[in-house]
Amino acid sequence: MRTIDWRDGHVVAIDQTRLPDELVLLEIHTVDALVDAIKRLAVRGAPALGAAGALGAALAARQHDTDPEAAREAATAVRAARPTAVNLAGGVDRALTRLEDGPDAVLAEALALLDEDVRRNRTLGERGAQWLDETVGRPVTVQTHCNAGELACVEWGTALGVVRALHERGTLAHVYVCETRPLLQGARLTTWELAQLRVPHTLVVDAAAASVLARGLANAVVVGADRITANGDVVNKVGTYPLALAAQRAGVPMVVAAPESTIDPATPTGRDVEIELRAEDEVLTWGERRIAPVGTSALNLAFDVTPGELVTAIVTDRRIIRPGVDAV
Amino acid sequence: MRTIDWRDGHVVAIDQTRLPDELVLLEIHTVDALVDAIKRLAVRGAPALGAAGALGAALAARQHDTDPEAAREAATAVRAARPTAVNLAGGVDRALTRLEDGPDAVLAEALALLDEDVRRNRTLGERGAQWLDETVGRPVTVQTHCNAGELACVEWGTALGVVRALHERGTLAHVYVCETRPLLQGARLTTWELAQLRVPHTLVVDAAAASVLARGLANAVVVGADRITANGDVVNKVGTYPLALAAQRAGVPMVVAAPESTIDPATPTGRDVEIELRAEDEVLTWGERRIAPVGTSALNLAFDVTPGELVTAIVTDRRIIRPGVDAV
Repeated sequence: MRTIDWRDGHVVAIDQTRLPDELVLLEIHTVDALVDAIKRLAVRGAPALGAAGALGAALAARQHDTDPEAAREAATAVRAARPTAVNLAGGVDRALTRLEDGPDAVLAEALALLDEDVRRNRTLGERGAQWLDETVGRPVTVQTHCNAGELACVEWGTALGVVRALHERGTLAHVYVCETRPLLQGARLTTWELAQLRVPHTLVVDAAAASVLARGLANAVVVGADRITANGDVVNKVGTYPLALAAQRAGVPMVVAAPESTIDPATPTGRDVEIELRAEDEVLTWGERRIAPVGTSALNLAFDVTPGELVTAIVTDRRIIRPGVDAV
Repeated sequence: MRTIDWRDGHVVAIDQTRLPDELVLLEIHTVDALVDAIKRLAVRGAPALGAAGALGAALAARQHDTDPEAAREAATAVRAARPTAVNLAGGVDRALTRLEDGPDAVLAEALALLDEDVRRNRTLGERGAQWLDETVGRPVTVQTHCNAGELACVEWGTALGVVRALHERGTLAHVYVCETRPLLQGARLTTWELAQLRVPHTLVVDAAAASVLARGLANAVVVGADRITANGDVVNKVGTYPLALAAQRAGVPMVVAAPESTIDPATPTGRDVEIELRAEDEVLTWGERRIAPVGTSALNLAFDVTPGELVTAIVTDRRIIRPGVDAV
């Protein structure tokens, strides 16, 4: 089953806020409903956002099938739902290139993007697994962060696509998963995927990941990316940067697995990327309950910037980039 | 009001698991009840554990006032309640030196330790504030972790003692607080103390602290310590080590504020310290609700080791130690 897809004239997507408790499918018939699903992270993950963007353009083209300008305007709302992931805007823009050919053409372009996502992630997963097999001692033991699995993509993950390919090769020993506060994508989603794949795994709080590396429990860090800038800086879920610092100190390779579409050559460095500030309540409350005193405020940075020099290898569907050595 | 004290023949302590929702005083009449309070972190923080150890010895001496050997054995249970903090064992041992003089003498020694804790932390707070005032640009903006405040001590904090002294000098601008998963001592306790002191502060998830430093939002890191080994390694709440890595990268001083009693010259390095592994459920569940799938396990390291070379200054009640420059 795909994480996000088109069925019977509308978008269907797994509601990721309900996992691991229950597997609920959202039926999304309007651009507004899609924007809401993206904003509340029911649909999330850079490649899945690319698919959501493209399918959002298809929805917009259907809703306004006699008025291409209105369709374009509606699609702009999807584009702006989350500012940091380059894939979301990229998906919208790509599908809109067919707007003049009508709604069916926009949809066909969107579905082509979904198929490509699956194909490309399989390719990058295999490439990453091979690189790790050759570079680090066997068996490979991975520390990962957040969820860069099939739930973050269409059907096959990026960082967890590498993990899955290692598992299929029989060279994977264990995966350590950061819980990834505040929304616990690691604790809820990555563990769920690993359990489905029967991969042995252990959950740690984000603050303990550096200790996992310092103690030699993992011999590689593998994460996804939301945007990679021209100089090789990696914008990814907040917590990736301290993990890269700990990997460098431990002498463990820091591997970023992401499709080529994540690369944004138009943006020079990570400092030039707008980092999404999410609602304070994600940090200040837990479910209905407030955890901090009334009056305390929070800074809820959704992403951080890992300087390219801390990244050992960026694995894409086309190549392996060593920032500082290879051109992005 | 003291965080832990002796009143009417028994121990009274703030139940820190109930903050910030309500201020509840525990009345502790037996060694068993004290051990339970320590294990479930109702009483926590290295200096407060020193006080709890000493008062535990006083309780043991009262419970077994005709049998010093039984008293010594009971006190051993307090000593073993948490393995990493050197202060707990130190407090028990110090009060027990008066065991042959009877229960009142043991209690007097324990109360002397409590008074010293207050006096010494005031001294180290003032010294740390002066050092920061002279070393970093004004105003000082602090990133801290966990709770090394008065709740972690008897009446005056260590890291937050420095913060409080800066605040009284009028040279403190802001404090960033790590929430400190899994038990949220930062989100629940440090914010509560700072709110009481009317210190402007902002809560961040642990994974975002490195970004706070990389963005130049804080010009000093100030944390406490549970144990400092002979080579200057600092054992403190898990998450301190990645904070030190981020501080080094940002060129921000990493300051550890702890009384001399935290120094353990008998232990050569941080690697020689037993790191407490706490229950997996602290990570796997939230309140009554499980957050990770059934079948997922967790590694719950309570502390980590920050190599002395990453520590700019250790401020104690007697001196300032620059690991690698000064002898510990």
